[in-house]
Amino acid sequence: MKQIPAISIMGWSGSGKTTLIEKLIPIFHRWKIRVGVLKHDGHDFEMDRSGKDTWRFSQSGAEVVAISSDRQAAVLENRRLELADLLHRIRDVDLILVEGYKASDLPRIEVHRLANNKPLSVDPDGLAALVTDADIQTTTPRFTLDDAQGIAALICRLAGLEQAPFPAE
Amino acid sequence: MKQIPAISIMGWSGSGKTTLIEKLIPIFHRWKIRVGVLKHDGHDFEMDRSGKDTWRFSQSGAEVVAISSDRQAAVLENRRLELADLLHRIRDVDLILVEGYKASDLPRIEVHRLANNKPLSVDPDGLAALVTDADIQTTTPRFTLDDAQGIAALICRLAGLEQAPFPAE
Repeated sequence: MKQIPAISIMGWSGSGKTTLIEKLIPIFHRWKIRVGVLKHDGHDFEMDRSGKDTWRFSQSGAEVVAISSDRQAAVLENRRLELADLLHRIRDVDLILVEGYKASDLPRIEVHRLANNKPLSVDPDGLAALVTDADIQTTTPRFTLDDAQGIAALICRLAGLEQAPFPAE
Repeated sequence: MKQIPAISIMGWSGSGKTTLIEKLIPIFHRWKIRVGVLKHDGHDFEMDRSGKDTWRFSQSGAEVVAISSDRQAAVLENRRLELADLLHRIRDVDLILVEGYKASDLPRIEVHRLANNKPLSVDPDGLAALVTDADIQTTTPRFTLDDAQGIAALICRLAGLEQAPFPAE
């Protein structure tokens, strides 16, 4: 099974990671690149609903409960999974954007903003790119917070998706 | 990648498929068999919640959106997937119980009950087992609706899980 390229979008809470990813997805969509997103939730998210059949199966002790319709599907894992195992469960996409795994071995793009009043979370030299409105000196490629198009192009290069069309927009 | 054995639990709406699966899961759990359940939903289920980050990613056009915490994970597929593709997305379990795919090639167990006022949905000779409170003549193994233990043992045999321990209970 071919490994799907994955890129980490990381940074402090409040830096704008989710908003950036939300802007990147439609750009990749226009470039015919199918995107999967994996987000780590520091809290404990609630996806299922009490009383639903899926919930009843989970309550009964099923490790995995999946539900499908003609338009969509959902797979709920009632256990902790490591990043590598999670990435293997995302299939039939061209690129995976990973949010919130600060310590992964993936190429990392840090999102940073002055208004957040935080330093960079890691040494910028260890980053694949830095997205910030601060004047930080580094040899790492740097992007402004509103340059989603430029960041998307860099992600394509990092992910080995150079064949993707890049129409002028 | 090893194929995980999958068994279809099928029958008319109202026959008690979900309730039976709910009884089977804890039995497999005691037998140290990790279970995944896949349910087909004739309607369109709603798993995500408006405004959540996962929802925002789906709205932006991501094919797949996954979220993980230290206890659980969920993978949402914003597209139609065939049964075979869905089964491949359920990993690291010993057995998959499939509810609601009437026409699959999987070994099938029909659940049927008199109070439901329906005939069998298929010829019983094509079934791996029949679970019913009706007096139906067939050479197919037949179980009563309350015999979850017997049905679980048959599923183990069908799934090639004979090595599982069967302690007296």
